[in-house]
Amino acid sequence: MPKRSEEHLEARRRQILDGARVTFSRYGYEGATVAKLEEEIGLSRGAIFNYYPSKYEIFYALASEQQAQALEIWQERGFEALLREIAEENPEWLGVYLEHVRHLRTDPELRARWQNRTPEDDVRARDHMVELQASGEIRDDVSAETIGKFLGLLADGIALQTSAGFPVDLEPMLGLIRDAIAPRK
Amino acid sequence: MPKRSEEHLEARRRQILDGARVTFSRYGYEGATVAKLEEEIGLSRGAIFNYYPSKYEIFYALASEQQAQALEIWQERGFEALLREIAEENPEWLGVYLEHVRHLRTDPELRARWQNRTPEDDVRARDHMVELQASGEIRDDVSAETIGKFLGLLADGIALQTSAGFPVDLEPMLGLIRDAIAPRK
Repeated sequence: MPKRSEEHLEARRRQILDGARVTFSRYGYEGATVAKLEEEIGLSRGAIFNYYPSKYEIFYALASEQQAQALEIWQERGFEALLREIAEENPEWLGVYLEHVRHLRTDPELRARWQNRTPEDDVRARDHMVELQASGEIRDDVSAETIGKFLGLLADGIALQTSAGFPVDLEPMLGLIRDAIAPRK
Repeated sequence: MPKRSEEHLEARRRQILDGARVTFSRYGYEGATVAKLEEEIGLSRGAIFNYYPSKYEIFYALASEQQAQALEIWQERGFEALLREIAEENPEWLGVYLEHVRHLRTDPELRARWQNRTPEDDVRARDHMVELQASGEIRDDVSAETIGKFLGLLADGIALQTSAGFPVDLEPMLGLIRDAIAPRK
């Protein structure tokens, strides 16, 4: 495939994802009709669904992309930066996440797909945690998985409260979180 | 008011709340129509709305009641028991909570009312936390409020994951949580 065409494809995908994120945030996932997506993205439904087979696939691509970004923030700037990032995320967009999550329980197939959507990132995240244990930055008397799940609970708690319009004042809590995962003396 | 009548009123309220909880859990808050509420509760809409002025007030009464129960569990059996209780709560009912919370952001008046729905319980919770600090059971180098908010993030994270059909394996994480709020040595 010629380079120009690849660039064009990538630019169109970006255009679709950016427009869809705005539309989802403004109207919720259910409320983001195809007509509203067309208007915000600036492409016809034919063009949009040429790149993504369904509205759900667009949301899924956005969520996967965000997951990758979260991992990058965590690896490069640490878990505190990542939790801060979530606390400062657009509440509307977090609301779309929650709206989606609410449907997972009733759809086991979708739930399995969602849980396994970024297997390579999951491995990278686990490896990163194990490295932090090896270098003595976090405790190693509990598994990397347990520490990851603990931070995941906090991340989801922050997302839930932020999306509900209750801003989370994270700074005073960071000391507690650090102490929870610090190496034992 | 004669005693018999008070008992009758209380029994009717109980009947309405129990039936409404089942209906909300099964159909979601939006999906719990008045017809479905009538059927599950076993009372006519006239009778139901004689006790609670609206569907929202029934949900609100259920939520306030649950808040009081949560405080009791926490005071009598500790925060670990409370977090366990949330992890074992009916995922459908937690989903109703989340569905509700998702609407708070767009309704500032409702949000203020929700946040201040149990002021006496909030005072009791704070007093309990201060007592735990005074008796040396939890750290006192950060405010009781910060510790409470930290536990609140975890509680919401547990509720979110459980409602999405991802059961939380809390036991391995309890050590981290204890260490976060334990007195500093």
